[in-house]
Amino acid sequence: MSDLLKKAQLVKDTTTSLATKTTEEKNEALRLLSEALREQKSFIMTENQKDIEKGRANGLHESLIDRLILNEQRIEGMADALIQLTDLSDPIGDIIESWDRPNGLEIQKVRVPIGVVGMIYEARPNVTIDAASLCLKTGNAVLLRGSSSAIHSNTALVQVIHDALKESSLPNDAVQLVEDTSRQTASEMFQLTEHLDVLIPRGGKKLIDTVVSQASVPVLETGAGNCHVFIDESAKKDMAIDVAINAKTQRPSVCNSAETILVQQNWAEKHLSELVEKLQAAKVEVHGDSFTVNQGENVIEATEADYETEYLDMTVAIKVVETVQDAIDHINHYGTKHSESIVTETDQHVIQFMNEVDAAAVYHNASTRFTDGFEFGFGAEIGISTQKLHARGPMGLEAITSTKYLLYGEGQIK
Amino acid sequence: MSDLLKKAQLVKDTTTSLATKTTEEKNEALRLLSEALREQKSFIMTENQKDIEKGRANGLHESLIDRLILNEQRIEGMADALIQLTDLSDPIGDIIESWDRPNGLEIQKVRVPIGVVGMIYEARPNVTIDAASLCLKTGNAVLLRGSSSAIHSNTALVQVIHDALKESSLPNDAVQLVEDTSRQTASEMFQLTEHLDVLIPRGGKKLIDTVVSQASVPVLETGAGNCHVFIDESAKKDMAIDVAINAKTQRPSVCNSAETILVQQNWAEKHLSELVEKLQAAKVEVHGDSFTVNQGENVIEATEADYETEYLDMTVAIKVVETVQDAIDHINHYGTKHSESIVTETDQHVIQFMNEVDAAAVYHNASTRFTDGFEFGFGAEIGISTQKLHARGPMGLEAITSTKYLLYGEGQIK
Repeated sequence: MSDLLKKAQLVKDTTTSLATKTTEEKNEALRLLSEALREQKSFIMTENQKDIEKGRANGLHESLIDRLILNEQRIEGMADALIQLTDLSDPIGDIIESWDRPNGLEIQKVRVPIGVVGMIYEARPNVTIDAASLCLKTGNAVLLRGSSSAIHSNTALVQVIHDALKESSLPNDAVQLVEDTSRQTASEMFQLTEHLDVLIPRGGKKLIDTVVSQASVPVLETGAGNCHVFIDESAKKDMAIDVAINAKTQRPSVCNSAETILVQQNWAEKHLSELVEKLQAAKVEVHGDSFTVNQGENVIEATEADYETEYLDMTVAIKVVETVQDAIDHINHYGTKHSESIVTETDQHVIQFMNEVDAAAVYHNASTRFTDGFEFGFGAEIGISTQKLHARGPMGLEAITSTKYLLYGEGQIK
Repeated sequence: MSDLLKKAQLVKDTTTSLATKTTEEKNEALRLLSEALREQKSFIMTENQKDIEKGRANGLHESLIDRLILNEQRIEGMADALIQLTDLSDPIGDIIESWDRPNGLEIQKVRVPIGVVGMIYEARPNVTIDAASLCLKTGNAVLLRGSSSAIHSNTALVQVIHDALKESSLPNDAVQLVEDTSRQTASEMFQLTEHLDVLIPRGGKKLIDTVVSQASVPVLETGAGNCHVFIDESAKKDMAIDVAINAKTQRPSVCNSAETILVQQNWAEKHLSELVEKLQAAKVEVHGDSFTVNQGENVIEATEADYETEYLDMTVAIKVVETVQDAIDHINHYGTKHSESIVTETDQHVIQFMNEVDAAAVYHNASTRFTDGFEFGFGAEIGISTQKLHARGPMGLEAITSTKYLLYGEGQIK
């Protein structure tokens, strides 16, 4: 039996036991893990150093090296996050609904763990702790498959997890790392429908697309964000400019940052030159349609490709539109159903935009940058779903749970 | 552009319009469709006759011919079901949760259509009306792909749907039938992630397995049911026998019927011979372990394969176990996570069984036959999900909806 299958079976065998653990037992395991991380800091850093050296030897870009690094501060951060996680309420066991049927059957819909989560992720080794802890908090087992570039770090972290689980009442095998990081093994993992209840890919678009297109196991897709801010005719000038600049520049590398700003013609005639000037002052490279090109120096003429691109850096596309309907049509055509915002003082346009834009999060008079689990108040985040099944938008703990019906009778037959 | 792609685009283009239709507009379309079915009965039956003749010429088994038939009574039944559907409450637009954040953002989680449903189904042409009507009720567009054996019937029914939609305020293109029923086209449909939000296969295990293993579009899996009844030591004799016989025989061909009966040793010593006798009197072929073989005439010795088999007919496997834990272990090993029942008077065993059995519906003192949308009181059923993502167990209208976050601000930036 391959290492993959052996470990998949090990984690699967822990699900019944995990599902029945109390909140306090799960929190105790998280506290033990937090302590173990602090205690074994130097071991983790020594192992991490091997990945960093290998990365440098392989000519890995410094920005990727930076993602790999586990220093004291980052390990402390991981340990702190575990303690915060113990404060969150445990969704498992919640009775979501209950009702009686005319034949006397009592039906309860209760929240249960999803079972086994398969996590496939790229360089950042902190995902190992992040994923394992969110899964344990919700009574799930997890099969981890990180990248080869972080294999020493991930192996060390899973060893620390096992040390902590041994002290706890949770089953030791609930967290397993697939040590073979070949593509072949990843492809085999995509097909383990008998062992895995869900696959969660975390990483770049290519990784996610590969998992979505190849996996037979259901996938929780955390996708790209080609997000828009639409500035309507009645938008307040300063608010519109602040929202647009914040959505673009506050952290351009993340999926909820804006990529295209749509501007209503009449507003554009009055204020677009100021918006362009302020974007450029904030060091944003502005691409624009023919109208926008004339609103400032150094505006690059936008092409179709601009509207399709998730820049993820300090570049923005600007397009002038006639109506709110034009803005909605543009967004529903080019957008990735992530986060979309309208700035307007016109109630009718708010209703139309909120109803007709097809996205996980639709904003009125606010920056798109609020689409994340912490800003929504969930206290944790598995990722931001851009699909419509199971979970949409920021995913908190509930996203890695399922439900089950319990039916209580007195001998009812059909 | 292929017929498939053209139609996929047509249905997709109706989603924004569909999502904003009122409950009354959607119900009016269902009433018009109900009328149109009654008015065009003879046209439908004439077209259906072509499929039946082709089926007979191709040597199709009479049981499959029966599934194909659309006679007056069945068409009236479909028309009646549409009127019943208008009485169900419309989940679209429901505000599921709403809360305020410390920064003043108001967040609402609202229920929205899923978008485009891809339905892939086998012989029964009534699925055409069933799927189309459930989708329209929930503001979804639908791309239908039936089997070649029902192509004349399905084409006629979709023509009737279009005649009805023309009279309604719903977009005519919201329902489309893929007329090319080749495997190649089905495989292409599995990959239409840009057009389809979910695929729902309805048919045999082979069809479902093919869709699950090949599709990139997320799948709502409605799967097999290897269901069990466990008769515990303290089970009341008559109740246990009634539940077991009902779960096995009331409609053996459906997924929620029982396939294996597990019997606690002490109960078995007292009452198993009576259970075997009554099962055989009900014309059930009994396979059993070595203990069971000695409880009656004509009990066939069960093999491992028996416990893995979803017979779907008048055959049952019986196995004697020592404890409730043995029963749970057997079920979690051999079961398909569908419907499982314990008959017992021991509270502690109820709790253990309900908590530890991993299935969509777990019963105490009732037949497994109640796992369906109508018995649960949903008023409609899309299918019974055996996966853990999105929907688990009987799926009502909500299973073909998604959610969306609406965020109302006053210029909030991060």
